[in-house]
Amino acid sequence: MPAPSDHPRRILVLHGPNLNLLGTREPEVYGTTTLEQINVEISRICREKEVNCDLFQSNHEGALIDRLHQSKGLADFLIINPGAFTHTSVALRDAISAISVPFIEVHLSNIYARETFRHKSLLADLALGIISGLGAQGYYAAVNYALDRTS
Amino acid sequence: MPAPSDHPRRILVLHGPNLNLLGTREPEVYGTTTLEQINVEISRICREKEVNCDLFQSNHEGALIDRLHQSKGLADFLIINPGAFTHTSVALRDAISAISVPFIEVHLSNIYARETFRHKSLLADLALGIISGLGAQGYYAAVNYALDRTS
Amino acid sequence: MPAPSDHPRRILVLHGPNLNLLGTREPEVYGTTTLEQINVEISRICREKEVNCDLFQSNHEGALIDRLHQSKGLADFLIINPGAFTHTSVALRDAISAISVPFIEVHLSNIYARETFRHKSLLADLALGIISGLGAQGYYAAVNYALDRTS
Amino acid sequence: MPAPSDHPRRILVLHGPNLNLLGTREPEVYGTTTLEQINVEISRICREKEVNCDLFQSNHEGALIDRLHQSKGLADFLIINPGAFTHTSVALRDAISAISVPFIEVHLSNIYARETFRHKSLLADLALGIISGLGAQGYYAAVNYALDRTS
Amino acid sequence: MPAPSDHPRRILVLHGPNLNLLGTREPEVYGTTTLEQINVEISRICREKEVNCDLFQSNHEGALIDRLHQSKGLADFLIINPGAFTHTSVALRDAISAISVPFIEVHLSNIYARETFRHKSLLADLALGIISGLGAQGYYAAVNYALDRTS
Amino acid sequence: MPAPSDHPRRILVLHGPNLNLLGTREPEVYGTTTLEQINVEISRICREKEVNCDLFQSNHEGALIDRLHQSKGLADFLIINPGAFTHTSVALRDAISAISVPFIEVHLSNIYARETFRHKSLLADLALGIISGLGAQGYYAAVNYALDRTS
Amino acid sequence: MPAPSDHPRRILVLHGPNLNLLGTREPEVYGTTTLEQINVEISRICREKEVNCDLFQSNHEGALIDRLHQSKGLADFLIINPGAFTHTSVALRDAISAISVPFIEVHLSNIYARETFRHKSLLADLALGIISGLGAQGYYAAVNYALDRTS
Amino acid sequence: MPAPSDHPRRILVLHGPNLNLLGTREPEVYGTTTLEQINVEISRICREKEVNCDLFQSNHEGALIDRLHQSKGLADFLIINPGAFTHTSVALRDAISAISVPFIEVHLSNIYARETFRHKSLLADLALGIISGLGAQGYYAAVNYALDRTS
Amino acid sequence: MPAPSDHPRRILVLHGPNLNLLGTREPEVYGTTTLEQINVEISRICREKEVNCDLFQSNHEGALIDRLHQSKGLADFLIINPGAFTHTSVALRDAISAISVPFIEVHLSNIYARETFRHKSLLADLALGIISGLGAQGYYAAVNYALDRTS
Amino acid sequence: MPAPSDHPRRILVLHGPNLNLLGTREPEVYGTTTLEQINVEISRICREKEVNCDLFQSNHEGALIDRLHQSKGLADFLIINPGAFTHTSVALRDAISAISVPFIEVHLSNIYARETFRHKSLLADLALGIISGLGAQGYYAAVNYALDRTS
Amino acid sequence: MPAPSDHPRRILVLHGPNLNLLGTREPEVYGTTTLEQINVEISRICREKEVNCDLFQSNHEGALIDRLHQSKGLADFLIINPGAFTHTSVALRDAISAISVPFIEVHLSNIYARETFRHKSLLADLALGIISGLGAQGYYAAVNYALDRTS
Amino acid sequence: MPAPSDHPRRILVLHGPNLNLLGTREPEVYGTTTLEQINVEISRICREKEVNCDLFQSNHEGALIDRLHQSKGLADFLIINPGAFTHTSVALRDAISAISVPFIEVHLSNIYARETFRHKSLLADLALGIISGLGAQGYYAAVNYALDRTS
Repeated sequence: MPAPSDHPRRILVLHGPNLNLLGTREPEVYGTTTLEQINVEISRICREKEVNCDLFQSNHEGALIDRLHQSKGLADFLIINPGAFTHTSVALRDAISAISVPFIEVHLSNIYARETFRHKSLLADLALGIISGLGAQGYYAAVNYALDRTS
Repeated sequence: MPAPSDHPRRILVLHGPNLNLLGTREPEVYGTTTLEQINVEISRICREKEVNCDLFQSNHEGALIDRLHQSKGLADFLIINPGAFTHTSVALRDAISAISVPFIEVHLSNIYARETFRHKSLLADLALGIISGLGAQGYYAAVNYALDRTS
Repeated sequence: MPAPSDHPRRILVLHGPNLNLLGTREPEVYGTTTLEQINVEISRICREKEVNCDLFQSNHEGALIDRLHQSKGLADFLIINPGAFTHTSVALRDAISAISVPFIEVHLSNIYARETFRHKSLLADLALGIISGLGAQGYYAAVNYALDRTS
Repeated sequence: MPAPSDHPRRILVLHGPNLNLLGTREPEVYGTTTLEQINVEISRICREKEVNCDLFQSNHEGALIDRLHQSKGLADFLIINPGAFTHTSVALRDAISAISVPFIEVHLSNIYARETFRHKSLLADLALGIISGLGAQGYYAAVNYALDRTS
Repeated sequence: MPAPSDHPRRILVLHGPNLNLLGTREPEVYGTTTLEQINVEISRICREKEVNCDLFQSNHEGALIDRLHQSKGLADFLIINPGAFTHTSVALRDAISAISVPFIEVHLSNIYARETFRHKSLLADLALGIISGLGAQGYYAAVNYALDRTS
Repeated sequence: MPAPSDHPRRILVLHGPNLNLLGTREPEVYGTTTLEQINVEISRICREKEVNCDLFQSNHEGALIDRLHQSKGLADFLIINPGAFTHTSVALRDAISAISVPFIEVHLSNIYARETFRHKSLLADLALGIISGLGAQGYYAAVNYALDRTS
Repeated sequence: MPAPSDHPRRILVLHGPNLNLLGTREPEVYGTTTLEQINVEISRICREKEVNCDLFQSNHEGALIDRLHQSKGLADFLIINPGAFTHTSVALRDAISAISVPFIEVHLSNIYARETFRHKSLLADLALGIISGLGAQGYYAAVNYALDRTS
Repeated sequence: MPAPSDHPRRILVLHGPNLNLLGTREPEVYGTTTLEQINVEISRICREKEVNCDLFQSNHEGALIDRLHQSKGLADFLIINPGAFTHTSVALRDAISAISVPFIEVHLSNIYARETFRHKSLLADLALGIISGLGAQGYYAAVNYALDRTS
Repeated sequence: MPAPSDHPRRILVLHGPNLNLLGTREPEVYGTTTLEQINVEISRICREKEVNCDLFQSNHEGALIDRLHQSKGLADFLIINPGAFTHTSVALRDAISAISVPFIEVHLSNIYARETFRHKSLLADLALGIISGLGAQGYYAAVNYALDRTS
Repeated sequence: MPAPSDHPRRILVLHGPNLNLLGTREPEVYGTTTLEQINVEISRICREKEVNCDLFQSNHEGALIDRLHQSKGLADFLIINPGAFTHTSVALRDAISAISVPFIEVHLSNIYARETFRHKSLLADLALGIISGLGAQGYYAAVNYALDRTS
Repeated sequence: MPAPSDHPRRILVLHGPNLNLLGTREPEVYGTTTLEQINVEISRICREKEVNCDLFQSNHEGALIDRLHQSKGLADFLIINPGAFTHTSVALRDAISAISVPFIEVHLSNIYARETFRHKSLLADLALGIISGLGAQGYYAAVNYALDRTS
Repeated sequence: MPAPSDHPRRILVLHGPNLNLLGTREPEVYGTTTLEQINVEISRICREKEVNCDLFQSNHEGALIDRLHQSKGLADFLIINPGAFTHTSVALRDAISAISVPFIEVHLSNIYARETFRHKSLLADLALGIISGLGAQGYYAAVNYALDRTS
């Protein structure tokens, strides 16, 4: 993994499968905030810091990979909540490696308090860091971490 | 998993990857009945009981997830033959959880008589039940089970 | 395993250990239907199709094996709920092999939603099929599957 | 497991396979006290406390299960030394669950100081407690524990 | 295990579950010789050497254990084909230990050429020796080995 | 491990980490009796039998080891509830071996009904016996077992 | 774990073994910020929000446990970087459970990018959340998360 | 797997996820040759031998499966570099089985010199052969192998 | 493995590493009979039956393989005590497969009563049968088994 | 591993155990081409490119190692079919490392379609690449790959 | 690990838990030499070479860590017998890494001839070397190795 | 293992495969001292103590075994660096057992800092001790240890 660029100008935020249902899906696990609300807040923070931000969700592994490829050379920081793909997608891992962008892995729920198969992330060893269990706050902390690197 | 609704009015039937080739693919394993023939019979049974039924096949994990999301609040029972995704797709598991619908997992062949990696289902612990090895009859038994719950 | 005989004339139905308590034992897991009621219904279906049916329950592994031996050459289809012996009895597996009869393995509860040691069946790879989690309906679906093969 | 009844009136004491040889079988492992002597002492303690006690030994897993079934609704506490069935009998586990009675698992020898396959008990997670390695005293401690609950 | 007695006067020969079907059960695996024929030959060899021999088969683990107990102090050599109990019965292992008799474990088929779960014997580490895959000849070799120890 | 001395004159009772909170810590798991109350009762039993008893609790592994060393040649029986160190401390195991004293391992809760990592004890194979799940009664049973050895 | 108190008034911040060397120890892994600097910043944030904060570091597992016990009923939120004890200390896990306080687990480095034995945390399933790899920022994000819960 | 057809007339060449970035993605691992260049060379070799060749790349597992289905009965040899799907896609395996076409699995890098999870291929046991680590030359060797079968 | 030839005319007997020391090496494990004495007795039995027998011992895996190759088409039965190569030599396994000769695997000691790494044989699944623990008698039983097949 | 020399002048080709039987040994697995024929073809290709080639086969691990040592500083490329030593010989691995020569590992059959113990190569992570299952063509592809590097 | 300093001027010698009992603790395992005697001899050797040496023993993991920290920048070589902490203390490992000092790990007994859990050292991969089983001589060999580096 | 003879008169020193290349093979791992130089130094030390010493290196497992056999009754101490055979040769282990000679296992490099498959020694549990990572000094320390036992 490359050292994170000092001055991110464009952050890519990827949301994996089923995250489009956020706020309605198992709220006792994932909370009641919707993905739309999270995206609005992320955009607000980025705007404040005069940084571009790309937001994308898909239930298709291939679509997430395509989007990563399109960001090659454009985005200089990645915040990704890979959802279930965290545990199964080597292809997503390879796509992130391929575009050589520093990233933080975010999980809304505490994946270590859930089923055993959720304890292993196929991406985590490549990440700068992981935030798990802080709900929507996890995204914002990741964004702030990325932006604090700019100045 | 929620208790199954007492009066299913709309059953969603999902067929996973490669099931479109049914009848032509390895007939010694999967039989000669085509997916079309199975769908016709399922529709007939449902019509008899005056229950709607949605039928969908895809080789794309993401498309199956999208379809599940679209059925949220509409379908009240799911019959799914996840095919190879049975063993690899946490995302499909999450999608079913997300729409909170009782379901039966169906396999045409006896998965316990095949390769070891087919013995483990990532969905089975969430299902009401599993039927494996009864060929096309497995689908019909599942439909009948669902419909018998209505009266 | 031999191909199932085309015209079953006598079905053997075996119930393993603790199934005699059905209806009273942990009803939240196994339901309130008694074994007697299940046997009555199986007999009714068989009578309708003019097929003999033998019904036997025991808490003794040896007694189940003896009964299988006695059915050699008489029964031409087996429906078995091996109960706890599913997970521990190689001898039962061998007895079924020894009498060369096609069979379906039935479980009232969804064994994949229970303790890990219940996920592995020592019989399943020899079975035509497995039905798990459909309660008493699982037996009837198995009987119907067997009988549909006759005509 | 249900909370133990406050006032046990009838204790069932089960001895598993090979315990009939106690006192003669490998005395350096199991001591020289006979099963008869242990039963006499257990009876004496129970009589003192005016509690009934049923004592039963068998080398047949099925016979132990049958006896448990017969005690359903009669015995309100179980002390069991499952012997070798500790490590192999899911059926015995199910029988205890089926009659919903609180129990203590007793082993004469320290099973953790013996072969690895003796370290795992299929019953222990359902028990109130386990006593292992105290010889015949383990039975008496279990009886006293049960009886102390009555007053 | 004690050192084998120098002068066996009574050999106990135990046949485990499903061996009563020998000659008819899966002849491609187990051959066409019947258990009766094997027993006749074993008796003949023993008579020649003026040694008593006890022969017993059961499908019941408990019955085999009971028989072992009854032989305590009477039989001074054991030849056992534990069949499926080889892989599952700790109780049988304990019963053999309990009567302190040297023994040879015999298997008609080569258990190492079959399913993985047949590769592990729960008795073998206590045996003098194991003979596997020589068919009925395995029994005779074991008897001859035992008798050659007498002179 | 040496054979327990016939006439214990001084019993060492060690309580491991977090046991100082007994009675307040997770009472649904550990009960409401305090460590002070347990110590008082142990002292009373010992006084009755005219045996000395040393009682010590620490959250520091090193402190428990130091205390064991100090008891070398003084205490002739050990009752230890190692708490969490049961599963992680080889050093505590070595310290007990080093002072060559017979001991009983006591657990208030049934460790086999809890997280998997609590099922393995690093001390148990060296102990005379283990008592798990009997609450404070487990201590008293252990003390009585030790004292009954004196007369 | 209890739901976090709505209005934390006192946050306990624990630093595990070797964290006292922060800034000098392997700076390429842990950065050059000292523990003192981190503590100053945490204190500043807390002061701003008018919340008390306790800061403690030790290389002694027992001392960390003692400190947790002392905070019982006083601290209502815990931020802990357990250092190496993350992977080995069941006692620390029990101490946190014992005082029933919501907590966030913080790691300076990305533990999933290091040796395999660092991938497993014995605390993580009890935590509200985990932050790993964000350096000193991880502490501040945890503090901010805790404080945002107050208003 | 069927024996390869003697006279391939149409070779299908599939490139899995992230291979579209070839030449730019981690060139120290995958080299600087682009996928376009590889495809041109493959086409040239095929043209020389007067054999048709289909070339397809996708980051979508479903799209690769669809393409395989479309080739059923048309292509008579498959050369596939499944990329990351090598290690995770049972569905791709099933699709290849379903169309019954002999194939060679190609990897640009030596997968056995990389992360452990890349050592296991879900396709390899069905392949005629595997070529790993020869870079673009691996494709050409596979094509030559296929074409040499025609004459 | 081919069916054993009906009329063996030449038996190859191979002794693996360290067997040359037989009689002097750890006599409590391997007995006091020398390899020379065993070879003499094997030769005597063969001569009696008018069958040739080749006897060879080596501590060199390659020499044993060479000898097997030289016997290709000459020997029609193999008796092999592979010694330590039993557990480590795939090459020896391949050599036996390569010359397509039925064989019996003999071990002087009971390998199942020794270190765990001796429990697994790399040859056993290819053998007609295995004899373990009968000392020198194991060789003679194997020879007799082979010769009894001739008439 | 060193980067392969740009201009190989001498290629060492090593054939492991049992490969001398090629063409006669299990032809359904290994084909009917003899080792002699393969060597002739390899020599022809090398001659064409004016490159020396050394060819050596042995059933002795030590002889292969000796030959590797002798080639130190002489051969600048290695093609090796280690046969069964692939899975068992750390010494061969070390010998290749010791002479610091780039190499390709060749297997005639597809080792991933055979017994599990053949799936793991002790050399593969050091190789430039692996070719498995292409029969004799695998050798030629490897040679061509090596020679293409020269110009 | 840094390359060892060429001119050690101060050697730190750490003895882990229970080593204070040396000479009295299980002398058949650890010998009769006391720790005092070992320390005297180490000091003598160091004095001879005009090198300072620090000697410290503790049963407290935290105390050993503290001592390591205090030696940071002072000691330039470490000889450590971590005792039981060898197998359980990641914190000790981290402390050694933190002070960047070359070290040798010494064990009095041969840890590979003892319980399985003693075979794994959490420090060994960081050490220059390991000496196990040479008793007190192991310490002296380590000291001599360290000192020989000075001249 | 026998207790080491008190007065070794002849030490056998065995060097395993690839050690003949010492000094030239991967000097960054194994150093630049040649085997010849090591042998000269060992001889010198032995001569000084008036003890015979036999030195032997081979890349052939069988040759090392033969040499061990030849030393039976002659050598009374063994120093062995088994090289790669450490991890794979049960035959070498058996040969050492067979000649009943005390031995020390020496490794030049620290095997615990290398590939996982080098962490397990098949000899180590039989050795008096192990020295790993001290380079040529490891041999000399072993020789000195052996010789110190003589007086």
